[in-house]
Amino acid sequence: MNVEKSNWMQIEAWLKRDDRAVLPIGCTEQHAYLSLATDAILAERVAQEAAEPLGVPVFPVMAYGITPNFVAYPGTISLRVETLCAFVRDVLDAMHAHGFRRVLIVNGHGGNAPAQAAVAEWLGAHAGAQVKWHNWWNAPKVWKAVQAVDPVASHASWMENFPWTRLEGVAMPRETKPEQPWAQWTHLGPAAIRERLGDGNFGGAYQRDDDSMYAIWRAAVEETRALIEGGWA
Amino acid sequence: MNVEKSNWMQIEAWLKRDDRAVLPIGCTEQHAYLSLATDAILAERVAQEAAEPLGVPVFPVMAYGITPNFVAYPGTISLRVETLCAFVRDVLDAMHAHGFRRVLIVNGHGGNAPAQAAVAEWLGAHAGAQVKWHNWWNAPKVWKAVQAVDPVASHASWMENFPWTRLEGVAMPRETKPEQPWAQWTHLGPAAIRERLGDGNFGGAYQRDDDSMYAIWRAAVEETRALIEGGWA
Amino acid sequence: MNVEKSNWMQIEAWLKRDDRAVLPIGCTEQHAYLSLATDAILAERVAQEAAEPLGVPVFPVMAYGITPNFVAYPGTISLRVETLCAFVRDVLDAMHAHGFRRVLIVNGHGGNAPAQAAVAEWLGAHAGAQVKWHNWWNAPKVWKAVQAVDPVASHASWMENFPWTRLEGVAMPRETKPEQPWAQWTHLGPAAIRERLGDGNFGGAYQRDDDSMYAIWRAAVEETRALIEGGWA
Amino acid sequence: MNVEKSNWMQIEAWLKRDDRAVLPIGCTEQHAYLSLATDAILAERVAQEAAEPLGVPVFPVMAYGITPNFVAYPGTISLRVETLCAFVRDVLDAMHAHGFRRVLIVNGHGGNAPAQAAVAEWLGAHAGAQVKWHNWWNAPKVWKAVQAVDPVASHASWMENFPWTRLEGVAMPRETKPEQPWAQWTHLGPAAIRERLGDGNFGGAYQRDDDSMYAIWRAAVEETRALIEGGWA
Amino acid sequence: MNVEKSNWMQIEAWLKRDDRAVLPIGCTEQHAYLSLATDAILAERVAQEAAEPLGVPVFPVMAYGITPNFVAYPGTISLRVETLCAFVRDVLDAMHAHGFRRVLIVNGHGGNAPAQAAVAEWLGAHAGAQVKWHNWWNAPKVWKAVQAVDPVASHASWMENFPWTRLEGVAMPRETKPEQPWAQWTHLGPAAIRERLGDGNFGGAYQRDDDSMYAIWRAAVEETRALIEGGWA
Amino acid sequence: MNVEKSNWMQIEAWLKRDDRAVLPIGCTEQHAYLSLATDAILAERVAQEAAEPLGVPVFPVMAYGITPNFVAYPGTISLRVETLCAFVRDVLDAMHAHGFRRVLIVNGHGGNAPAQAAVAEWLGAHAGAQVKWHNWWNAPKVWKAVQAVDPVASHASWMENFPWTRLEGVAMPRETKPEQPWAQWTHLGPAAIRERLGDGNFGGAYQRDDDSMYAIWRAAVEETRALIEGGWA
Repeated sequence: MNVEKSNWMQIEAWLKRDDRAVLPIGCTEQHAYLSLATDAILAERVAQEAAEPLGVPVFPVMAYGITPNFVAYPGTISLRVETLCAFVRDVLDAMHAHGFRRVLIVNGHGGNAPAQAAVAEWLGAHAGAQVKWHNWWNAPKVWKAVQAVDPVASHASWMENFPWTRLEGVAMPRETKPEQPWAQWTHLGPAAIRERLGDGNFGGAYQRDDDSMYAIWRAAVEETRALIEGGWA
Repeated sequence: MNVEKSNWMQIEAWLKRDDRAVLPIGCTEQHAYLSLATDAILAERVAQEAAEPLGVPVFPVMAYGITPNFVAYPGTISLRVETLCAFVRDVLDAMHAHGFRRVLIVNGHGGNAPAQAAVAEWLGAHAGAQVKWHNWWNAPKVWKAVQAVDPVASHASWMENFPWTRLEGVAMPRETKPEQPWAQWTHLGPAAIRERLGDGNFGGAYQRDDDSMYAIWRAAVEETRALIEGGWA
Repeated sequence: MNVEKSNWMQIEAWLKRDDRAVLPIGCTEQHAYLSLATDAILAERVAQEAAEPLGVPVFPVMAYGITPNFVAYPGTISLRVETLCAFVRDVLDAMHAHGFRRVLIVNGHGGNAPAQAAVAEWLGAHAGAQVKWHNWWNAPKVWKAVQAVDPVASHASWMENFPWTRLEGVAMPRETKPEQPWAQWTHLGPAAIRERLGDGNFGGAYQRDDDSMYAIWRAAVEETRALIEGGWA
Repeated sequence: MNVEKSNWMQIEAWLKRDDRAVLPIGCTEQHAYLSLATDAILAERVAQEAAEPLGVPVFPVMAYGITPNFVAYPGTISLRVETLCAFVRDVLDAMHAHGFRRVLIVNGHGGNAPAQAAVAEWLGAHAGAQVKWHNWWNAPKVWKAVQAVDPVASHASWMENFPWTRLEGVAMPRETKPEQPWAQWTHLGPAAIRERLGDGNFGGAYQRDDDSMYAIWRAAVEETRALIEGGWA
Repeated sequence: MNVEKSNWMQIEAWLKRDDRAVLPIGCTEQHAYLSLATDAILAERVAQEAAEPLGVPVFPVMAYGITPNFVAYPGTISLRVETLCAFVRDVLDAMHAHGFRRVLIVNGHGGNAPAQAAVAEWLGAHAGAQVKWHNWWNAPKVWKAVQAVDPVASHASWMENFPWTRLEGVAMPRETKPEQPWAQWTHLGPAAIRERLGDGNFGGAYQRDDDSMYAIWRAAVEETRALIEGGWA
Repeated sequence: MNVEKSNWMQIEAWLKRDDRAVLPIGCTEQHAYLSLATDAILAERVAQEAAEPLGVPVFPVMAYGITPNFVAYPGTISLRVETLCAFVRDVLDAMHAHGFRRVLIVNGHGGNAPAQAAVAEWLGAHAGAQVKWHNWWNAPKVWKAVQAVDPVASHASWMENFPWTRLEGVAMPRETKPEQPWAQWTHLGPAAIRERLGDGNFGGAYQRDDDSMYAIWRAAVEETRALIEGGWA
């Protein structure tokens, strides 16, 4: 159930028979030649497709996240750690008040990890509630599918280049970018990171064939769906 | 320029010739029979349509807002005042660092008003920057267009019932709901508000003909576009 | 009961027979030729006069509020949104712990509105408590009384010029100031607002006869008193 | 210059020739048989009388402070540490923006001390600004005057019983209360503190002759005035 | 029981028979010729020695505190008021969740006092819990022991010069420093404070014989131990 | 240079020739049979040993960190995300004011990762400063050394069992614990985590020979030292 296409009566009806919900969160940040909204687009889409046959409500994507290392790239919006943590707490508080007890957060952006700690704090104060934090892109099955295509896969490379994140009229570079020693630059601050990282791709080819991408996507949808369906207490 | 369909290089190119941006913010809250995301859908859509011919970047909608009075309606998510203020500050800080100097916030939800005060604070600390706060639905031209159709128009009534906020398979009540003395209940807290307000409509018919709605929408797009184009210092 | 003229035993005695209290909040900000404390003076005075015959405790006025648009005027103190919200929460928490369950906040300053959202949040967490937020100057009866005198009435105009807000030795301009298109300047920041707004009056005459002012004041006291007396759940 | 009796033009004129201001802060808390507003009344009054011949602006009193130990006494409002610190920072920020560089905070309540640390932090970030924190009631000259009358003097005893803090129609106990080992109870929490402390007086007589009180008051006004006048860098 | 030398099973076993714990907090700040960690070293050591025969768990020292006045001295780290208050609340929350109900905070730094107010707030929300705040260095018995040696004793003077805070290879000045009118400088900000205060000693000799210091230390350990043992409700 | 064994003059002298510093941060949390302070002990020790021959100042360890998943284990103290982030910002602000420009944070606890995001934010606001975040236990060389001994190594297993973290009189289990599917439990909250995880070891043997441990330690000291020495801009 897409919350954007539901009214409150429908949510109330759902809560009479189930207590699960899905919250996708992403980021608005540089993804080299791809959409600045890549992390939000993918998190929301995989959440929607995964939940669709189950009828579990999927709330609107939070399109902004924590990305302090990329702020020298125009269009990158970084929320402070406290802001995203506050957002996640507010949403969980509201969901809990309505009766939701099992929430899957489908996270599309590695930098949002601090909010996972906020979730753990929240769980400590809400006995009986369960909240899974799911980094859809590096969960076991997706990662295996990615590695099967090309082991060099990272931020803003082919691995995030889906028909729904690439941009019309934007040509991808033909070459394969060497893996970037990204972790060795973070102490230098965002200006130096941009200077070294250039277009923003962390390394790898810029695009692969769509069949490969669809295979990865199917793995993502299935893996996410399994987390919505099972593994709860 | 839809930021979701842009990469950072395109934003950088834009910033070489212009310093305007648009940020739509909405809410996820009860809208009676209409979509819980009505405020986000409308804010984002009017922003996109208004900006499109101008090429000004429109950032992804912030789909969550401040709505403490409606939290007894399932699916309603209320951010605390501090959370939305922090969000708006973080976004403006990032935009400012990139060189944006004129930002139009297209707000789709009356309850978000506290963030307007945060914007004013932010302006006091950023000389040379301009940020307009635009409540698209009650700006002069839209309000005139609404009144021309039916003076009884309010939250969750026909006035928010557009082809893109009504829900497939959900029938609207035929009757016209009397105007609700909403302001007289806020001191009672959210449970009592829901009890009195019932379906959530503040009063008025539930639906009007689409021609009327398109006329209102055209006024909204034009009025929003005029704010993007002119009136800057 | 003026809390400044009460001790804790008297408050305790009151709480054995009633659970109402009044909290006036104002602002310290430019009011053109009038007192910088106009909003605090009026909020406290109307609260005191309204409550006096009822015996309901009136707490000391909070003399500072949110006014980011006027900070370029010397003597204007603007609290951040979070500060006033925190203040209001702290006061309500304390009152609630003592047994107060029905509180009227008599607000004298439009810019304090974000704290009204904080009150609504607080109510959601305190079932059984009631808090009314009363903007005394634009409540229906006062506004009608103002309009009866002169429809051009706004911030720092005659409408706020009472014998207890005007200043000894300060002559009022004789002319009537044209209405200022104030809302069209807020995106420019406080320096530009001051430049355009000049003395700070939003438009209208600077003073009217005292009989008119007393009539408005009587309406204010009665309207406020009625809110203390009735309309509770 | 009483800010409540000044407009912004007068503050601006003052700032052209001087950069001093005074901010009184108090508390609303139990004072045994005396006014709940004792700390605010005294801080504001001593500030006004001290500043009057000098023409230095005295801002409205902040009537609320930090008093977590007394919250079991009805009518006592305790701000959280963060709230008062935020308040003080906001006020200093605004004053500094207007050109004030030397501020005397006249504090009437011992429990407000955490805000003194916030002032020290603020000074570290505002080179060239000076802010004195003045606990008027235990400054050297006042304390000497108090001791000359009666060495047993403390919270809510005769020492705070001035003609302007005692209440009409409230009789003072005749006896002298033994000194209360107050510090030994703070670990027990507010309910236990009230249980042990009874009426709230920390020890000593409840009232002394007015001549003694006026002598103390004169010392207070003079000592406070000297701090406004001199001792600046 | 030194928590650094305990595992969780041992704490759990302790909690089956007792609900006391000790938390030492200090500061990292200038102490003239002595260790920058003087306040942390002394607080932790006195806590450990006092608790040792009782078996009460002593948690690791919080080595950082609030010291805004000394930030012009290299190596001085000042936490904001909010940071230390948050720290103390978090620790008390965790201890309370485990079953601790009587906590002694052994504080080694006067500037940490704002956190004492946070403790009082916390107690108001945790009925049945007791938290003592113990400034070990100026508690009655220690202060008496100090005065018996030399009445001129203050920050960074001989009074803090123990064999475990003095530094190898650092010679102490031979002279006795006049008492510094420290309180008269705080309004000037940290740069001016350092300029006037010089080496950081507030006044007095720099070192005394070790027998005197051991006598003071014994008093400190005994006084602290007595607070762990008794005086609880 | 151990800051605990230095005074401010020594830090000032250092800053005249170098701008590096080291800050160890740990945690107080369950480590099965090992010390609750394991993460703090190891972070501080490796920092000290690594820096010693270089003379770089090592500040006192922050002994508390973020560990919401373990709060059901007595003695575990979890700071909220905001608290540790605030702590790290305060320390970096102070260091920066003194002239430090290159800081190595030696982190001993995986759960502290949110503070790494706060560091990245801080770097964006302090051009020219560099801050490395070093998780000493899973840096490349240490991890290689660990794997060489036993690939099953995790929280509270042999891998953290050094002569300086094991406890006198506490016998280690002889068996090897199966790897625990820890990540699959985090959505259940802390009580369920403890129930499943038992003693707290994530899997692996409880102890290995000291030669192996010293080899790992040497790798840790060398790897940490290399980060203090080189790799700066």
